[in-house]
Amino acid sequence: MKLANFKSLLWGLPVIVILSMLMYGCPSQQQLGANADAAQKVYVAPGEYDEFYGFMSGGYSGQLSVYGIPSGRHLYTIPVFSQEATNAYGYSEESKPMLNTTHGFVPWGDSHHPELSQTDGVPDGRWIFINENNTPRVARINLSTFTTDEIIEIPNSAGNHASSFVTPNTEYVSAATRFSIPMDDENLNNEDVPISEYSEHFKGTLSFIKVGDDGKMGIDFQILVPGFDYDLSHAGKGPSDGWSFFTSYNSEQAHTLLEVNASKNDKDFIAAVNWRKAAEYAAAGEGRMVEGEHYRNYVDHDTHTAKSELIEEVRVLDPRELEGLIYFLPTPKSPHGVDVDPSGQYIVAGGKLSTVIPVHSFEKMIQAIENEEFEGEIDGIPVLNYDAILHGEVENPGLGPLHTEFDDRGNAYTTAFISSEIVKWDLETTQVLDRIQTYYSPGHLMIPGGDSQKPWGKYLVALNKITKDRYLPTGPELFHSAQLIDISGEKMKLLLDFPTEGEPHYAQAIPADLVRPNQTQFYKLEENNHPDAVKGEDETRVERDGNEVHIYMSTIRTHFAPDNIEGVKVGDKVYFHITNLEQDWDIPHGFAVKGMNNSELLIMPGETRTIVWEPKKVGVIPFYCTDFCSALHQEMQGYIRVSPEGSDVEIAYGTGQ
Amino acid sequence: MKLANFKSLLWGLPVIVILSMLMYGCPSQQQLGANADAAQKVYVAPGEYDEFYGFMSGGYSGQLSVYGIPSGRHLYTIPVFSQEATNAYGYSEESKPMLNTTHGFVPWGDSHHPELSQTDGVPDGRWIFINENNTPRVARINLSTFTTDEIIEIPNSAGNHASSFVTPNTEYVSAATRFSIPMDDENLNNEDVPISEYSEHFKGTLSFIKVGDDGKMGIDFQILVPGFDYDLSHAGKGPSDGWSFFTSYNSEQAHTLLEVNASKNDKDFIAAVNWRKAAEYAAAGEGRMVEGEHYRNYVDHDTHTAKSELIEEVRVLDPRELEGLIYFLPTPKSPHGVDVDPSGQYIVAGGKLSTVIPVHSFEKMIQAIENEEFEGEIDGIPVLNYDAILHGEVENPGLGPLHTEFDDRGNAYTTAFISSEIVKWDLETTQVLDRIQTYYSPGHLMIPGGDSQKPWGKYLVALNKITKDRYLPTGPELFHSAQLIDISGEKMKLLLDFPTEGEPHYAQAIPADLVRPNQTQFYKLEENNHPDAVKGEDETRVERDGNEVHIYMSTIRTHFAPDNIEGVKVGDKVYFHITNLEQDWDIPHGFAVKGMNNSELLIMPGETRTIVWEPKKVGVIPFYCTDFCSALHQEMQGYIRVSPEGSDVEIAYGTGQ
Repeated sequence: MKLANFKSLLWGLPVIVILSMLMYGCPSQQQLGANADAAQKVYVAPGEYDEFYGFMSGGYSGQLSVYGIPSGRHLYTIPVFSQEATNAYGYSEESKPMLNTTHGFVPWGDSHHPELSQTDGVPDGRWIFINENNTPRVARINLSTFTTDEIIEIPNSAGNHASSFVTPNTEYVSAATRFSIPMDDENLNNEDVPISEYSEHFKGTLSFIKVGDDGKMGIDFQILVPGFDYDLSHAGKGPSDGWSFFTSYNSEQAHTLLEVNASKNDKDFIAAVNWRKAAEYAAAGEGRMVEGEHYRNYVDHDTHTAKSELIEEVRVLDPRELEGLIYFLPTPKSPHGVDVDPSGQYIVAGGKLSTVIPVHSFEKMIQAIENEEFEGEIDGIPVLNYDAILHGEVENPGLGPLHTEFDDRGNAYTTAFISSEIVKWDLETTQVLDRIQTYYSPGHLMIPGGDSQKPWGKYLVALNKITKDRYLPTGPELFHSAQLIDISGEKMKLLLDFPTEGEPHYAQAIPADLVRPNQTQFYKLEENNHPDAVKGEDETRVERDGNEVHIYMSTIRTHFAPDNIEGVKVGDKVYFHITNLEQDWDIPHGFAVKGMNNSELLIMPGETRTIVWEPKKVGVIPFYCTDFCSALHQEMQGYIRVSPEGSDVEIAYGTGQ
Repeated sequence: MKLANFKSLLWGLPVIVILSMLMYGCPSQQQLGANADAAQKVYVAPGEYDEFYGFMSGGYSGQLSVYGIPSGRHLYTIPVFSQEATNAYGYSEESKPMLNTTHGFVPWGDSHHPELSQTDGVPDGRWIFINENNTPRVARINLSTFTTDEIIEIPNSAGNHASSFVTPNTEYVSAATRFSIPMDDENLNNEDVPISEYSEHFKGTLSFIKVGDDGKMGIDFQILVPGFDYDLSHAGKGPSDGWSFFTSYNSEQAHTLLEVNASKNDKDFIAAVNWRKAAEYAAAGEGRMVEGEHYRNYVDHDTHTAKSELIEEVRVLDPRELEGLIYFLPTPKSPHGVDVDPSGQYIVAGGKLSTVIPVHSFEKMIQAIENEEFEGEIDGIPVLNYDAILHGEVENPGLGPLHTEFDDRGNAYTTAFISSEIVKWDLETTQVLDRIQTYYSPGHLMIPGGDSQKPWGKYLVALNKITKDRYLPTGPELFHSAQLIDISGEKMKLLLDFPTEGEPHYAQAIPADLVRPNQTQFYKLEENNHPDAVKGEDETRVERDGNEVHIYMSTIRTHFAPDNIEGVKVGDKVYFHITNLEQDWDIPHGFAVKGMNNSELLIMPGETRTIVWEPKKVGVIPFYCTDFCSALHQEMQGYIRVSPEGSDVEIAYGTGQ
């Protein structure tokens, strides 16, 4: 080789390297592979914020969990249907009424489907609703405080699963019987009948909860339906606004071994409800009022105290008497999810034993109703002809299709539970476009705004039912597994696995900017109208009333007032009414007494909370602040002296004396 | 310019580019800046595992939270001291005894300091202990199942804060009085005395809980100490093995407004306890037994059922009577943390009002004891001379130094609460080497193994007390904030903010490989010796015993057996004993009955759990599986018929009939 050629080669080497780099990326990035891209996409640097609030139902936790998206970080858990010792929810006097039901105090719930309030079909960030499946209830959560503002019970129902889906302007929240129950003809009361007489006695109801401008909920009407299992729901939108759709299974009306006995029929039904017409009937006094005791529990914002209101009656509309209220759309097979696309034209069902995904056309449905293309009638409900209403069937949708959400580009995404995948398909053509494995067995899926008229179609979260080996194991019990998928391109890309507490049955997400500006950072002390509040240390005191002792206490960095209390006796019922005088964000104080058969209190700035203690032992008992509040937090303590029953020690109290 | 030169320049350009790349990294990485590096370091790709298990105390949640490190993902929450509706902890019959105390059932606790069991001074992954601050208790958690195995109460104590720190071979777990209480001379019983007589009557105890090879805990002895507040603790190691160190504050013995009255003395004390000598005294029957009722609650692994054992006495050692037991090390000022370095030579205190970090020398301490370099004596406890025992003082350590952990390279890291920073300093020279801001106000900090003889000094987690604007806001209540810092290099680098539930007062972490191989995935059905278990559907049955009805039920995908039950009456007490027959990982079944004034059950494979229901209303009530277990999960339901009191409906049950 000539020297000149050798030199050329030498100089050429860098060019080859650079060309390689241009073709394949930097070596360091090559090593890192696709992970580097995913890592970058989900990383939220210190000081920066997640793009979306993700609200995940807790399932058997009974709560609502808040996750940041795309980071997958667990930001908070909102107590809703279950006692939460962390912040005394369901233990403090102010919160206990929230868990009141006609069955008494129920300390647990099974939260299922969160749904953001909407304006003009778009999530608006005011409230988020969530249903309780076991003891039928619907909660409304205030997104300025991230606290539960209201819980309403649903009478004449069991297993409130097809809930809490809203209509496009949050006129109504849906609810429905999952487990039909025997109902007497007069008042729909649950009856003592043999279970084997299911088909004669058992019925269901679809409930429509009216939501006021201030969020106040009330059951406007219930629609009497056959004794099937009503599973999921979604409201229409755009052209289909005014209608709601409910899936049902067990049209076989089995009452035992449903895995076999409720899986026989080739088609069950979607119930299409003309809620606007029903609302007109209700407003006109149609139907009838029946006994239907249920509680509405709500926070009185003046005092930050939950109150319980008993409502005794409920209006029932009977399709056998009122025309045009409800139609059955035959749908293969044991359908689970029912999802309406952003255009409002298509009604998609996830038939969990179906080999196709049926897509009904709203336009065809209206035509079929007008043309009376009926296959029959069940309990006054016309059954439409399947072929007459069908837009199309998605072929090869994966095994066990359950739920569908939508992006803003005409695509639908369906979870397939058995084949563990998400299938992307075109709404117009019903052709499958892409599929991605999920780990393992996805139930619901969620795209921010993905069940509304305005999906923010950047991310998709698969809510997987089986976790197994996706994270470091935590013994027999595992958190559920979520997977964040990038859907901004043609092909779906898996970005991140993140664990989620409880069992998120459904989730919703909303751009953070729609929620963040309205946050309450603390409660204003001058607006605290709790009857037991103190507005300053000069108002703190201890009062005896028979065997009740009321302690009106304040907290401020870094002491309680009073912090020495005497004159309490065994057998007394001691109420600690504690006002946190702080007026700064993130300066709660906590309060606990040794051996208390209760929770602690966690008191937000400006708020008053009460906890009851019945001391059983003589002695001097310490109390302290349970939230590290300042450099001298450890010094924030006090003593309460408990004397024997009948002792003549008088009430006395003070601070610093 | 000659052509040859121009050509040289042309060829030289790529070289310059490559040199630039080598110097500054790839252009794409430059764009991404330092974030790209941090993103990559904390990203755990789908299918991969976190490097460390992080165990974070829940503080006022009462539980222990498990986080993956470095991802910051919330993997699980272990119920310990508080009721947890999610998995019926504290609601099911099998778990309720775990929350039993001498004050009765206490549904809440304040969990503070998790500490992994150690062998030869190194975390071994068998158990993790955690203390309860309010109603003094220590729990032991089994890391093969991530469940609480045992909780022991501490008598003669209040505010069990200086706990649960272990000795190098897990011989003992420490505990101590945070709030001194009046104690009578004979039995240390809490007395009905005026609070103002604090200095005469109030005393404290330091408790040493002996841990058996099987983990079984028992209080071996308590040491009587003056009525100060005992705050934190750590055992010695290496040369100082056999000693434990406890900080105290309020040597002023104030009983009101401690933020002022307990901050007066320039020095308080570290109590140095020769626990090996104390153990010898105890073994020799020295000291005396006093009344000291306390419960030891433990899981009987044969039946997976918690049981309660009442222990009536406890041994007390009095320093006024027994020599060489305990010494006071004067320490500026209101010291909080006390931390022993990996070599066991240095005892570091975080004096929260101190302008320096004092570092005591264990060797000098022993010499000072031998030379009797005492400044005085308090209640039989010699006070050593400060200068005689001092290794050095760290100057300019930040404002409000609280806690120190260590790496494996001779460095110490101290949190400064008020100046919101972590300060790295050299143990030998006590010179500050580096400092990094944290957001905001760090309390504890944690390096995996960082309080043991073998720190894995790659990461540091700051456990911040104030969150404010670090994440998307969630109203007035915020999760606490953790920050992951890379300490592998000379300079500390902030990698990630992640929120943590409750208030993690302390945390521990351990390489995942030390815990993961020992995981229990499910319980073996053939080893289930629960007296109410069924081993197959042929053993399921319903039995009446007076007004108690016992339902022995099984679950398997996808039905209950029996799923139709009749003959239950209003006024009955119904026990559902449910065995999950599954033998596969992550296939729990849940169980709930409408309107039950109780939690649900979540039953792990192979396990039997019991929940009690007292039906109040007549009717046919559905029950269902609360954990989505299979494609036909929605069909996993049943009915129980409740007849009126006195009805003659007989017990009957079946499945599929």
